[in-house]
Amino acid sequence: MDAVDVIVTKRDGRELSTGQIDWVVDAYTRGVVADEQMSALAMAILLNGMNRGEIADWTQAMIRSGSRMDWSGLPGRTTDKHSTGGVGDKITLPLAPLVAACGGYVPQLSGRGLGHTGGTLDKLESIPGWRASLSGAEMLGVLGETGAVICAAGEGLAPADRKLYALRDVTGTVESIPLIASSIMSKKIAEGTGALVLDVKVGSGAFMKTVERARELATTMVELGTDAGVRTVALLTAMDRPLGRTVGNALEVAESVEVLAGGGPSDVVELTLRLANEMLQAAGIDGDPERALRDGSAMDVWRRMITAQGGDPDAPLPVAAETLEVTAPASGVLTSLDAYGVGLAAWRLGAGRARKEDPVSFGAGVVLHAALGETVRRGQPLMTLHADDASRFERALAALDGAYVIDGDDAGALPLVIDRITA
Amino acid sequence: MDAVDVIVTKRDGRELSTGQIDWVVDAYTRGVVADEQMSALAMAILLNGMNRGEIADWTQAMIRSGSRMDWSGLPGRTTDKHSTGGVGDKITLPLAPLVAACGGYVPQLSGRGLGHTGGTLDKLESIPGWRASLSGAEMLGVLGETGAVICAAGEGLAPADRKLYALRDVTGTVESIPLIASSIMSKKIAEGTGALVLDVKVGSGAFMKTVERARELATTMVELGTDAGVRTVALLTAMDRPLGRTVGNALEVAESVEVLAGGGPSDVVELTLRLANEMLQAAGIDGDPERALRDGSAMDVWRRMITAQGGDPDAPLPVAAETLEVTAPASGVLTSLDAYGVGLAAWRLGAGRARKEDPVSFGAGVVLHAALGETVRRGQPLMTLHADDASRFERALAALDGAYVIDGDDAGALPLVIDRITA
Repeated sequence: MDAVDVIVTKRDGRELSTGQIDWVVDAYTRGVVADEQMSALAMAILLNGMNRGEIADWTQAMIRSGSRMDWSGLPGRTTDKHSTGGVGDKITLPLAPLVAACGGYVPQLSGRGLGHTGGTLDKLESIPGWRASLSGAEMLGVLGETGAVICAAGEGLAPADRKLYALRDVTGTVESIPLIASSIMSKKIAEGTGALVLDVKVGSGAFMKTVERARELATTMVELGTDAGVRTVALLTAMDRPLGRTVGNALEVAESVEVLAGGGPSDVVELTLRLANEMLQAAGIDGDPERALRDGSAMDVWRRMITAQGGDPDAPLPVAAETLEVTAPASGVLTSLDAYGVGLAAWRLGAGRARKEDPVSFGAGVVLHAALGETVRRGQPLMTLHADDASRFERALAALDGAYVIDGDDAGALPLVIDRITA
Repeated sequence: MDAVDVIVTKRDGRELSTGQIDWVVDAYTRGVVADEQMSALAMAILLNGMNRGEIADWTQAMIRSGSRMDWSGLPGRTTDKHSTGGVGDKITLPLAPLVAACGGYVPQLSGRGLGHTGGTLDKLESIPGWRASLSGAEMLGVLGETGAVICAAGEGLAPADRKLYALRDVTGTVESIPLIASSIMSKKIAEGTGALVLDVKVGSGAFMKTVERARELATTMVELGTDAGVRTVALLTAMDRPLGRTVGNALEVAESVEVLAGGGPSDVVELTLRLANEMLQAAGIDGDPERALRDGSAMDVWRRMITAQGGDPDAPLPVAAETLEVTAPASGVLTSLDAYGVGLAAWRLGAGRARKEDPVSFGAGVVLHAALGETVRRGQPLMTLHADDASRFERALAALDGAYVIDGDDAGALPLVIDRITA
């Protein structure tokens, strides 16, 4: 087998065979196929596509590059959720303990944020003492004991994907639906979950800007999961505006705890409950998430889960040193609140990182005082910016320029849940 | 400037700016843009194309990566030829001294063969003592003294192209007309010739398999040369069958000397004269190539040119140790003689190299005893295979399987000169 032959096959618009895919993914992981060869292949895949069979083969080859987790020793069924990432998307935090409180086991391997969308691990690390890195045995321990574990994926899980993702990031080959789908699903299938709900975000603050592209990605991932024996369903959900009222690590943890306490913004509560029901249904578990929020059992799991990973659920969360209030320039209806603009502002305030080795500021971010569609009065606080250093406010304000509009044309906000995709 | 932005521009089908091209070619040459980034860009260029302005910018950026030669001190006009490569294409050998004998100065920087097509330097190195590598001063000395020099391009000429060509070779990104055209023309423009005739080969033994693709490449190169102030013309010529009666290094030198002596196969003579007339016309030189062949003045230049580079024009050429005759399996008209099959056979006999560090066998190759369209009798020798080692014959014969057909359908051989492309 020769790398150039594989590249030329896809370059010329032909189908890659199972043998070619198995070979090239394995040889790339072993360093036999060079980075410059894989990046040329990735560009050919991005521009010429892959069909369902090729994507399934590619995903399986990436899974086989590493180890596969096994939860068969648990006394119940596993079910997980994956979000493609958005601004203010803290749903995993209340969701995992909520589903565990309803009888599911949630083995949630998460990532860190890069760019304007935050990462679940960064958010949880704002809780004093909490550890993201667990051994396989610790992971199983926390999961078995509390019903949910949220931690970093180990090095052994789909190493081909980790290597390929780093390459795609520097070669302009990220935006390929076959490669995005196989990257996400190789990790989720290797993670060993029995059921999976995909939250595919749509809008300015999401990776997929249009419903059409999001539906294509969702369909591809649902097919991949189903073909691999994982009961998979996807929701397309709104990311034209931020989710909830907070964007930033500790700020989002506080909001998540509010939801677990029975409060919180209505959109976060609604999406958490909807995803919990989908996760339970996909796993064939009969549970009542609304009651688990109401009766405090989800909060109990949260506290046990945080404690089991070294965190103190009662410790005060980090607070940024400086704040700046943004007030409404006019009275009227808030007709636009752009997710990307708000996400970029939070990132510039210090909530996110530019490079993966950068630290994040736990207290930094944006608190929204008005939601899309609400009526505001001139001079009323629209949002508060939080940063460790006041010099960050100027560039954050620039990111917000045009990100909110009062009494503009009705832009036609997306419904919170746009569509549901099943096999 | 950022490599990913440049890649994404072309990936998304947009035009690269002059600034982007200048930056990426320079940064790649300096190692700031990595191989894996350039290969992704090359694949995007291959699949999405470049327009005339982009190709001109790319070519100029490659020229600026190195030094540019200057022949303004010569007492006459420079004119050169470049062939895209074919089987049995030894035309440069008689052509350069012929044009010099007519008053042109021919600064011919040549390459080595890779794969089934031979390289001019490999052929000339079969002459005992002849040296391909000359300093700039030696090159000017030979050119000024004899009117022609055929030598290896120095390291300083378009180093970006050398680096990029090696990358394209291993990443399946060779077959891009914008990249092929800019690769060839960057070297020819940097070489400093005032006029240039391009011999774009078409057919199974050529890089361009169809007249359509060859015309596209020729037009692109003629535009590039013209835009750079080089009087450029291109001929599309036949490479469905081998050129002349010999394929292999020393075998082709012997045939070239026959042409210079007033003999040689009619197709080689015809193409040599046609190209000589084009080179002289493009340079505005009034000369009579037919007379220069007839009166021995071209042969005189050849002998001086070979001698000036250390070669002995009277020394016996290397001969392969073993020969094998291939005879006609039936009587009839030779209706097909496939250039690729014959070229592959010669390569397997040892005339070519698989990797650029491999040596070539000077004596190895194929001598054809019958040309396309000639009538042969059963048992008559069709060709003789030459190799240093008889164990090579088996795989060479396999390459010839189906490469010659007697009394088959008239496949419609290409005319020797198919078309002429001017600005």
